[in-house]
Amino acid sequence: MNNNPVGVFDSGVGGVTVVKAIQEELPREHLIYFGDTARFPYGPRPLDEVKKYVFEICEYLIGQDVKLIVIACNTGTAAGLKDAQKNFNVPILGVIEPGARGAVLATKNRKIGVIGTKGTIESHAYDEAIHALDAGVEVKSGACPRFVDFAEGRGGQDGDILEVAQEYLYPLLDAGIDTLILGCTHYPILRDVIQQTVGSSVTLISSADETALEVKETLVRRGLLNDGKNHPHDKFIVTGDRTSFLTLSQSFLGRDISKVEEAV
Amino acid sequence: MNNNPVGVFDSGVGGVTVVKAIQEELPREHLIYFGDTARFPYGPRPLDEVKKYVFEICEYLIGQDVKLIVIACNTGTAAGLKDAQKNFNVPILGVIEPGARGAVLATKNRKIGVIGTKGTIESHAYDEAIHALDAGVEVKSGACPRFVDFAEGRGGQDGDILEVAQEYLYPLLDAGIDTLILGCTHYPILRDVIQQTVGSSVTLISSADETALEVKETLVRRGLLNDGKNHPHDKFIVTGDRTSFLTLSQSFLGRDISKVEEAV
Repeated sequence: MNNNPVGVFDSGVGGVTVVKAIQEELPREHLIYFGDTARFPYGPRPLDEVKKYVFEICEYLIGQDVKLIVIACNTGTAAGLKDAQKNFNVPILGVIEPGARGAVLATKNRKIGVIGTKGTIESHAYDEAIHALDAGVEVKSGACPRFVDFAEGRGGQDGDILEVAQEYLYPLLDAGIDTLILGCTHYPILRDVIQQTVGSSVTLISSADETALEVKETLVRRGLLNDGKNHPHDKFIVTGDRTSFLTLSQSFLGRDISKVEEAV
Repeated sequence: MNNNPVGVFDSGVGGVTVVKAIQEELPREHLIYFGDTARFPYGPRPLDEVKKYVFEICEYLIGQDVKLIVIACNTGTAAGLKDAQKNFNVPILGVIEPGARGAVLATKNRKIGVIGTKGTIESHAYDEAIHALDAGVEVKSGACPRFVDFAEGRGGQDGDILEVAQEYLYPLLDAGIDTLILGCTHYPILRDVIQQTVGSSVTLISSADETALEVKETLVRRGLLNDGKNHPHDKFIVTGDRTSFLTLSQSFLGRDISKVEEAV
């Protein structure tokens, strides 16, 4: 048993979908979410710079006595996961390997689609993680740059999202995929429209859900679960504007957040 | 639901520990075990030759309509898993990745020991699989060439095994490991003496058990479990002498096998 909190971070609000998934799997755990909103988005920045941010935030979270860290950000995972694992003495999980694993377990025809930001898709990190588990899987990936805006409510009319989704997803369907990885922490917000577009025969794999399962398995097997004697309490910290994070994160989390703190 | 059998193979009798673990996790599944005893051991053979054997046996098992194949052999996994996955259209699992995953989930101090045959240890396949999941884990590995003889009852007096185990395992303890992967399908037979030697504070990870969990998760998530309407029936096929396999496999399986067939 270990009652220290689990730390989760992202460049913005997207990682809140991972917080939600962890709360569902592990309702007794205390969580600390760190949203580096002042430097959002990480995608266009040089990987070395992103790695520096990953290290800074890991240090901050370790200062808060977290027992495990989740880099709930695909760019952050690609840029900094391995070096952070080497550098820090707490378990650190990314979102890419769990998502890849969930898809490899689920696919029947061994044709997996991956959608994500341009940076994530161009890094080929999902392709590598999938092929490490099953070298015979065909991967078809596509960047969906406009999805983040739609997830944050800036995308335009409701009709537009359907058109955009079709434009992004039909080429993946043409490739015969039976499983689709939502390879960006924002995408679970768009789950319904994505499922409607690809049809019910395609299994959607949420990296957020798969990462929550991995967090659970890690805490269970290491004997690090919270004993549940105290009501779980969550803490949200941002580097940028607190008000806009508060509004958005509530829609991502599906419930109220009482307070957002500013990082000092 | 899918009532086709699960295929499991090894160069000899060692993989029967994987059969036992699968029977415990999935008691409704039909199993086919293929022991390539005429060509045992694979360890000293060139990897290309072993890969050819892996392909031959996969073809044979697919001819028996298996729904999933387990390469229950570390050398076979290192030599042929990736190419077999690319070449055949059924899911194929090895024993290395599941063992590595189990250890990474379990370790608290992130120092993992690996024991196996000389070939497995020199291939560094476990080191790679562990570091793909947690780049910060320290791996200390050691070849234990005499353990296979002891597992098959040819090792010598009971006293000898304790001395041999100490010689192999004390250097790993000196490196501070808290988790030890039994990286050879023979080693679960020696579990008690290994646990006694390393002490109760070291967690033993059996690749056989972890692989059985992976088989279960794959069948569950793909909807391929047996419906359980028929009593499970297992089939054992060997390329070499049937009588010696029968005797040995019963001690590995912990129960009687009614019949061993010869491969044609």
